Amino acid sequence: MNETIKEFNEYRSRTNELILSKDNLVIKRLFNLDSNTYAEGALSTRTKEMLGLVASMVLRCDDCIKYHLEKCREQDLSTAEVYEVFAVANIVGGTIVIPHTRRAAEYWEALQE
Amino acid sequence: MNETIKEFNEYRSRTNELILSKDNLVIKRLFNLDSNTYAEGALSTRTKEMLGLVASMVLRCDDCIKYHLEKCREQDLSTAEVYEVFAVANIVGGTIVIPHTRRAAEYWEALQE
Amino acid sequence: MNETIKEFNEYRSRTNELILSKDNLVIKRLFNLDSNTYAEGALSTRTKEMLGLVASMVLRCDDCIKYHLEKCREQDLSTAEVYEVFAVANIVGGTIVIPHTRRAAEYWEALQE
Amino acid sequence: MNETIKEFNEYRSRTNELILSKDNLVIKRLFNLDSNTYAEGALSTRTKEMLGLVASMVLRCDDCIKYHLEKCREQDLSTAEVYEVFAVANIVGGTIVIPHTRRAAEYWEALQE
Amino acid sequence: MNETIKEFNEYRSRTNELILSKDNLVIKRLFNLDSNTYAEGALSTRTKEMLGLVASMVLRCDDCIKYHLEKCREQDLSTAEVYEVFAVANIVGGTIVIPHTRRAAEYWEALQE
Amino acid sequence: MNETIKEFNEYRSRTNELILSKDNLVIKRLFNLDSNTYAEGALSTRTKEMLGLVASMVLRCDDCIKYHLEKCREQDLSTAEVYEVFAVANIVGGTIVIPHTRRAAEYWEALQE
Repeated sequence: MNETIKEFNEYRSRTNELILSKDNLVIKRLFNLDSNTYAEGALSTRTKEMLGLVASMVLRCDDCIKYHLEKCREQDLSTAEVYEVFAVANIVGGTIVIPHTRRAAEYWEALQE
Repeated sequence: MNETIKEFNEYRSRTNELILSKDNLVIKRLFNLDSNTYAEGALSTRTKEMLGLVASMVLRCDDCIKYHLEKCREQDLSTAEVYEVFAVANIVGGTIVIPHTRRAAEYWEALQE
Repeated sequence: MNETIKEFNEYRSRTNELILSKDNLVIKRLFNLDSNTYAEGALSTRTKEMLGLVASMVLRCDDCIKYHLEKCREQDLSTAEVYEVFAVANIVGGTIVIPHTRRAAEYWEALQE
Repeated sequence: MNETIKEFNEYRSRTNELILSKDNLVIKRLFNLDSNTYAEGALSTRTKEMLGLVASMVLRCDDCIKYHLEKCREQDLSTAEVYEVFAVANIVGGTIVIPHTRRAAEYWEALQE
Repeated sequence: MNETIKEFNEYRSRTNELILSKDNLVIKRLFNLDSNTYAEGALSTRTKEMLGLVASMVLRCDDCIKYHLEKCREQDLSTAEVYEVFAVANIVGGTIVIPHTRRAAEYWEALQE
Repeated sequence: MNETIKEFNEYRSRTNELILSKDNLVIKRLFNLDSNTYAEGALSTRTKEMLGLVASMVLRCDDCIKYHLEKCREQDLSTAEVYEVFAVANIVGGTIVIPHTRRAAEYWEALQE
């Protein structure tokens, strides 16, 4: 696995554990609920991960974008599909989304290796 | 057609015409580009309208939400599907999205009539 | 009770019921979790309602502001205390928060009646 | 003067007075500082009002937009100039800014009367 | 003192000095006003620092979060109290706040050393 | 040329090329439109670059700020002028903009070398 991806995932796991170790019930339940949100339902996980990606892009959160890109990769999205999600995000959110798209584009390449 | 929906669409048409009548080239081209963004491509218009809806919800723009709800209705989304889009928006964007979800829920009902 | 307050609360109840009637599990659990967040804990409900108010102000959500103002009223916050919350919100969030502060100030007056 | 403009200004004055009557020193000083920000300096008031307008648009605050449009009118901005400010706001901030541009376009017309 | 904390504070001091050396009166007065905002008043500095923290979290500004975490440490907030502030921020602001909570959790640990 | 500036520009060029190599028509046209937005028109490029800068600051995008600072340098803005743009951004957007102003102030110094 690519080094950038590995580092991101290790950081994510380590800090999630730190947060959960403090036993704040509201945060614990929100983390749980977060996982449930993307489960198969009336909409497929594939569609929901695209929704999560576009929402993360217009809200401009690089770590959230990386996370959903990994999930989109697991759902076998093509590069053309991912770039159409990028297009919606950039049109709705404006050119302020471009720097995040740059980082997303790089991370997507790393995920193909 | 429901009165709220009619009013919204008339206001939208009238003010769009006002804007376009001023012949600002950048704005004209952005309006054009906006329509192209949701055309069939690697992703279906159906999927893209859901992306537009969730992006509008987390960015909390009521008029944008109404517009995409109408488009989702045209794409025959079920109420269960639309509420799963609402769910992603509320989890990613937080309870600050709830008041917009309230107005979206009402507009969705109006669109069923 | 003041008419504005009554209308706001009726609208809120009616649309919450509409949303919950659709049985989306994620949304239902988020609504539940939202209530738990402000329960007495390491911090008092009083403090947490101020936290909810300032967060709603910097995120500029009028309905959320109204809701937390009502809760702050129930917690017997003084006008001086509420205005110090307003001050933090305006300094952190900037003058873009002023129009929301105007509406908040009016609603706070209505809550005193 | 147009009714919409009059109402907006009366509401603004009345609620500003309400806020200032509570003697919160931080808020008072911020209100003062706000006026100073747009005074002639290295940049002209004319330029600064355009800066205030574009900032209000990308942050999507209708009341702030109205206020700065009035100031831009006082500074004799042409419609072509105002629409170029709108264009920057829409490109940087994305199509989410369009509904605010619609309301801005209407208000600008009212200001010409 | 922990290296991360030291570096952050040195960077902050150095760049604040750079900004203030340019003698922009509006910025200088805003910096001053910022300090006054958190002074003892109708609300305690302790409460206000929590307000500053939650506002910084929902607006997702890592440097602002670090600054207010240091102030919360000086005010002897317990870890349980800080995590209840985190909980309000995550519920109001949504899962988009989680990556900032991860970095906040790490910084809070560093502050305990 | 200063190392930080060189690195930023190389990263920008490389990732822009990556994005454009994927041939997403909407993104390509948005990139084009972005350049046109700042061309001489009813307003000068000089004024428009200031508009781009202030919009980037209140939306808190460091890379966008750097880009527009470079353009402002090319347009021979003085330090006093740039700091008045900073002032508008900080007043409208609040103290949450200060950390971005710190990084902007450093980058502006680098651009003077």
